[in-house]
Amino acid sequence: MLENKALLTDLYQLTMAQAYWQTGKMQEDGCFYLHFRENPFQGGYSIACGMAQVAELITNHHFTDEDVSYLASLPAPDGTALFNPDFLETLKDLRLDVDIDAVKEGTVVFPLEPLVRVSGPIMHCQLIETALLNAVNFETLIATKAARVCQVAKGPVAEFGLRRAQGPMGGNLASRAAIVGGCASTSNTMAGKLYGIPVSGTHAHSWVMAFDSELEAFRAYARVMPHNCVLLVDTYDVLQGVRNAIIVAKEMEQLGQRLSGIRIDSGDLAWLSIQARELLDKAGLTDVTIFASNDLDEYTIHSLHDQGARIDAWGVGTRLATAFDQPALGGVYKLCAKREPGKDWVPSLKLSEQTKKSTLPGILSIRRYLGADGIMVGDMIFDRGMPPVDDLIIDPFDELRQKDLSGCSYVELLEPLARAGKVVLSSSDVDALEARQRTIENLKQLHSSNKRFLNPHSYPVGLETQLLRQRDSLIRASRSIEGLRKK
Amino acid sequence: MLENKALLTDLYQLTMAQAYWQTGKMQEDGCFYLHFRENPFQGGYSIACGMAQVAELITNHHFTDEDVSYLASLPAPDGTALFNPDFLETLKDLRLDVDIDAVKEGTVVFPLEPLVRVSGPIMHCQLIETALLNAVNFETLIATKAARVCQVAKGPVAEFGLRRAQGPMGGNLASRAAIVGGCASTSNTMAGKLYGIPVSGTHAHSWVMAFDSELEAFRAYARVMPHNCVLLVDTYDVLQGVRNAIIVAKEMEQLGQRLSGIRIDSGDLAWLSIQARELLDKAGLTDVTIFASNDLDEYTIHSLHDQGARIDAWGVGTRLATAFDQPALGGVYKLCAKREPGKDWVPSLKLSEQTKKSTLPGILSIRRYLGADGIMVGDMIFDRGMPPVDDLIIDPFDELRQKDLSGCSYVELLEPLARAGKVVLSSSDVDALEARQRTIENLKQLHSSNKRFLNPHSYPVGLETQLLRQRDSLIRASRSIEGLRKK
Repeated sequence: MLENKALLTDLYQLTMAQAYWQTGKMQEDGCFYLHFRENPFQGGYSIACGMAQVAELITNHHFTDEDVSYLASLPAPDGTALFNPDFLETLKDLRLDVDIDAVKEGTVVFPLEPLVRVSGPIMHCQLIETALLNAVNFETLIATKAARVCQVAKGPVAEFGLRRAQGPMGGNLASRAAIVGGCASTSNTMAGKLYGIPVSGTHAHSWVMAFDSELEAFRAYARVMPHNCVLLVDTYDVLQGVRNAIIVAKEMEQLGQRLSGIRIDSGDLAWLSIQARELLDKAGLTDVTIFASNDLDEYTIHSLHDQGARIDAWGVGTRLATAFDQPALGGVYKLCAKREPGKDWVPSLKLSEQTKKSTLPGILSIRRYLGADGIMVGDMIFDRGMPPVDDLIIDPFDELRQKDLSGCSYVELLEPLARAGKVVLSSSDVDALEARQRTIENLKQLHSSNKRFLNPHSYPVGLETQLLRQRDSLIRASRSIEGLRKK
Repeated sequence: MLENKALLTDLYQLTMAQAYWQTGKMQEDGCFYLHFRENPFQGGYSIACGMAQVAELITNHHFTDEDVSYLASLPAPDGTALFNPDFLETLKDLRLDVDIDAVKEGTVVFPLEPLVRVSGPIMHCQLIETALLNAVNFETLIATKAARVCQVAKGPVAEFGLRRAQGPMGGNLASRAAIVGGCASTSNTMAGKLYGIPVSGTHAHSWVMAFDSELEAFRAYARVMPHNCVLLVDTYDVLQGVRNAIIVAKEMEQLGQRLSGIRIDSGDLAWLSIQARELLDKAGLTDVTIFASNDLDEYTIHSLHDQGARIDAWGVGTRLATAFDQPALGGVYKLCAKREPGKDWVPSLKLSEQTKKSTLPGILSIRRYLGADGIMVGDMIFDRGMPPVDDLIIDPFDELRQKDLSGCSYVELLEPLARAGKVVLSSSDVDALEARQRTIENLKQLHSSNKRFLNPHSYPVGLETQLLRQRDSLIRASRSIEGLRKK
């Protein structure tokens, strides 16, 4: 699958790379960090995902002869070649020489935190920026959406958004991220094969339409699929469909078989599921489960529970696989330090007129503090070059908001993903089902006030004291230089 | 790229296929059509796209030994094998035997119309349903969004949403569809290579941050990229950045070179572009273009024009590549006719309690009528098996709304894409730049009232008289049968 993604990059990364090469900046190192500024869906948390894709990207990264020929064919606006042939020769030999540290997939994360940190020759760091953002932004978005859906579902959730997903790999990666976020299975067979995740599904309306009557279609399905028989009851009329399913269930009982469930895919799911449950129960079919689907998301599922719907399991498609109400996470990748050959790292930041949009300077890391009950109490962002002097975290946008976490235990969240361009993860580190387990465990450690949908409590993420001072002095220095220039 | 997509399908297509095989329905033919019920973005039109991907899907479709081994490994809920080994053997030998007709990419299309019609063994038609919907839903969505953005831009639009797109192929296909919809170029280098579409881009904030000052960074960039020099002026302070760009432009003039443009990526784009234009013009740099980017879409661009912004070219990312305000098109694929061996086609429909959601029965085709001035005046959906008796089109949801198109010329929109499983398109049929030309020509034929964003005039799409009668009698027959059953 898209094995070598070297060209999966914005053209400007390549024109900048050529410019670094021509200006002799190839030897300079950069350190970049990937972070986002707000949780998606106005929520209180996010679930990190996409790191397995980053590992694959690093492993397979190289420019083929074909890639280079393509680049050689590109014209500048004046008709001359855009790229210098000698530069293109260096691309052929380029082997990524970056160190990458990242949080593990399935980790609960928050705004401002470095999810991925990349250091190495500045040109290498930039060449992978676009693909890395593409991987982490999208999978984190979908894993977070899935976690929210599963949080309210009270029963297994099957993802089946492939037909509305954004391209084939949009579909495959959405299926994987949905599992990481907590879904039980996907309808997407290719994702099942690619990622070793559970697949599920039975039949569609067209099966029923291919027969002269619904009852005939149900009987035929039960005959050939007695071990996996979930009947879709809404091709013509839902309650009539339930009655037909009951006839078939009774016939199956005679043969020592069991109808697994029915699925309702349209209409008023609350009312219909209550009616269907009543019909099934009256027929003694109390163990036949009711699946529901049709444009569901965390809000509609929550509302269905409120209305007393009798739904045991859920199929969630379009709104999960595209993160319909916010289809992009705005993660960015910013330079946080640079280093000339033989010298020390120098912290760096991008200024913005709003302090909120300024970036953090330094070789950034995260400590997560846990209370005695195992509940998360606050995260500290610090510069690895300046070990924390205490356990105080300070709100980067309101210095008066501080929290002292001394006495709490902590863990560090960033772990090595690659060293000198070689991926150092184990196969279990990139396993979707292991990541799902991590999501479940992590969410147990997060207080319920941070998980509610309406105005969630904001989880404390603060800067370590020295990092705050470092940022503030860089902002002041930058502004005074710019101020002088303006005069 | 994902060359063989046979497994890119919902699991239920495969369990249904096995059920068709086991019930001896392998010899029956089905006819399916792909359509949507509403234009995206509450707009008045859509731009068909994704047919090149459908052609690729058909060309490469086969189940490999590895695919079949994977399917053989899947368990039913009771632990037995989900698939019958003899059925899996038939998959290994399966060669798609479908006829496909489709509208050409870049065609303006409307709700209810068959964009793709597939006929052949019912099991074959179903196996490709999911991938076909994935292709046409997503690319049509993005081509439509791009057409809307280009409609208001008054200048070239570059797509650069890869970093926020939904997966790598979500990014690549979004880039292609954006070109089909009218964009001038993409930043996505891989899409450039894959689809032969124009690429563009210059440098990022990180280039400026890698130098000790902005002026030094600009000078270095101009030195190494004199033929493609667009300077990003907002790393620290936009107007200071413009002044630095002017210094560099003047230095370039001394060398007989020319600054192409500046780009503004933050702040109040209306105010800043007016200020920047004034500074550039005062310096005699009237031909230096101003590019703008930063969370743009058709609405923000429209508003910027209203405010008198002086922007010549646009970079549109996230909101285009993800179709942010409606990230999925709800296209569906429904059985419209079936045929037993040696017999005639029998029209078929899926009933819904709302007539609006019922499907159309028959081997559906589209005629597009044009007025003497070349403007589109109405589309007729008809059953190929019943050639139209007149030029009357009837609103399927309000029989009293009719339009007589006699005297107008017409064209048929569906053209052969595959015959007996072999793709019959030429390379120009799948070319993105040819499709872009078609979009431009088609939109010229569409009246402006159908193109406006706010409450667009609804374009007339109606049923041919006999098709309407056929649908109504099938709905009545179905309802009376179901009614009898309920008693």
